[in-house]
Amino acid sequence: MKEKLFVVKIGGNVIDNEPFLNKFLTEFAEIKAHKILIHGGGKVATQIGEKLGIEAKMVDGRRITDKETLEVVTMVYGGLVNKRVVSILQAKGCNASGFTGADANVIKAHKRPVKAVDYGFVGDVDAVNGAFLQTIINFGITPILAPLTHDGQGNMLNTNADTIASTVAVETAKYYDTELVYCFELKGVLRDFEDKESVIFDINKEYYAELKDQGIISKGMIPKLDNSFDAIGAGVSSVRICHADDLLSIVNGAQKGTKLK
Amino acid sequence: MKEKLFVVKIGGNVIDNEPFLNKFLTEFAEIKAHKILIHGGGKVATQIGEKLGIEAKMVDGRRITDKETLEVVTMVYGGLVNKRVVSILQAKGCNASGFTGADANVIKAHKRPVKAVDYGFVGDVDAVNGAFLQTIINFGITPILAPLTHDGQGNMLNTNADTIASTVAVETAKYYDTELVYCFELKGVLRDFEDKESVIFDINKEYYAELKDQGIISKGMIPKLDNSFDAIGAGVSSVRICHADDLLSIVNGAQKGTKLK
Repeated sequence: MKEKLFVVKIGGNVIDNEPFLNKFLTEFAEIKAHKILIHGGGKVATQIGEKLGIEAKMVDGRRITDKETLEVVTMVYGGLVNKRVVSILQAKGCNASGFTGADANVIKAHKRPVKAVDYGFVGDVDAVNGAFLQTIINFGITPILAPLTHDGQGNMLNTNADTIASTVAVETAKYYDTELVYCFELKGVLRDFEDKESVIFDINKEYYAELKDQGIISKGMIPKLDNSFDAIGAGVSSVRICHADDLLSIVNGAQKGTKLK
Repeated sequence: MKEKLFVVKIGGNVIDNEPFLNKFLTEFAEIKAHKILIHGGGKVATQIGEKLGIEAKMVDGRRITDKETLEVVTMVYGGLVNKRVVSILQAKGCNASGFTGADANVIKAHKRPVKAVDYGFVGDVDAVNGAFLQTIINFGITPILAPLTHDGQGNMLNTNADTIASTVAVETAKYYDTELVYCFELKGVLRDFEDKESVIFDINKEYYAELKDQGIISKGMIPKLDNSFDAIGAGVSSVRICHADDLLSIVNGAQKGTKLK
C-alpha cells in the first residue's frame, strides 16, 4: 500500500496576512504524513514592484509578466516569501526546503505561446521531477514550492500556483496515495458567494457540469475545479477546497470544505 | 577511497558581471566530479536596496544588516541571484538546486552577539547538514548555496560566503575527498597588489605567518586565509585561491592560483 502524501496549496491572501499565515503553518507543521506545500505570491510582489518603479501590466484582469516583473517575482516568490515560509516551518520542527521549478529541475515548463494575448514570461508545465521529490520526502524533507518554473534554457517562468499544485499531485500520485488540498480564505466552493456558509460539500463531475450550467460556480473558481477533476482523473485520490484554518482537521478526517471526487 | 568533491566559492564581482558569470558557469558545469557552489551577493542587493529607499548602514567598512536589509538580501541572494545561477546551470546540463541555510536546515547559525558593534542579523555558523548534502549529491544534484543561514527560530541571517564555503568543505570532508576553491577576479594571493601577476603559488602555515608579519598579505585576505588553514586542519584536502577563469584547468590538474596546504 502506498504511503499517504498531502499536497497543500496556500493562496496569496493567507501569505499576505502574518497572523493567518503563522496559524496555518503551525497546523501544517503538525501533519504527520508526508506533505508538500505550494504557496502563491501574495500582493507583496506588486508592492515591491511599485516601489522599484515597475508598473503592473494587466490584460483582461491578468498580469503580464515582462522581464522586469519576472525579476521581481523571482526575488519575492522565490526569495522573500519562500524563505519566510521555510524558516518559520523550521522553527516549528518541520524540516522544510524551498524550491522553484528550476531547482533540481523540479518543474520544467515552456513559455506560453503568444495567441490573442502575450502573457510574457509565463510558463505552462511540461514535467515534474517526481523521483527527486520522492528521494527528499523519504529523507524527511517537506518541499515548499514557489510558483515559478523554468524552461531548461536559462529562463525562469511565472506559473500559476494552482496549476503547480495539481500537476505535482498528479506526478506524486505515482509514488504516494496523494490528496490535494487547496486552502484559502473561504470555507469551500460556495453556492451563494454572499453567504460564506453556503458550502457545497461534495461535487462530482456530473454535478460540476450542472453547477457550471446554472452559473453557480464563479468564473474565478472554474480553472481550479477543472485542474482538480483532471488531477482526480490522473490518479490523485481526492481534492479538497477549504479554509486554511480547516486543514489540520480535514487531514485528521473531518468533513469540512468541498470534496471533489 | 572517498570520492572527490569540489566546494567552489564565487565572489560578488563575478556575479555582477554577466559575461564573466556565464563563462564561469559554463566551466563549472563541465566539472565531472561532485561539486557544490557557494555564491556571494554582489552589488545588486545594494542597488535594489537603494531603489527601495533602504540606506546601506556601514560600521568600519562592514555592512550592518538591519531588518529591512535582511529582507533585501533574502530576496536578492536567495531569490534573484540564486535562481539566476541555478537556471543558467540547468541550461548547461548541470542539475543544480539552490539552498539557503534554512532550506533542509542546511546551515544553522546564531545571531552574532553584540560586542563593540551590533552587526544586526548576521549569522555565525553552528552546523552544516552534511547527511542531506550527501543524499542529494549522490542523487546527482549540484547544491548552489546562497550566503544566508537561519537560526532555527524563524529568522534568516546574513552570512559571509567565504565562511559558508569553508564550513561546508569541513563538513563534507567527512564524506568526500574535498577540495575547496575560492574563485575571484585575481589570479591568486599576490605578493604585490599592484602587480596582478605576482601570484604566490604555495603557502603553508609557517610561510603564512611570515607573510603576515611582513605585511605582504592584504588585510582583506586574512579572514579568507585563516578560514582556509582552519579547513585544512579539519580534514579538507586542499584549498586554492584563483581566478574564476582558471577553475576548470585547476580541477583538471593545472598548477594555477595559490595553493594552501
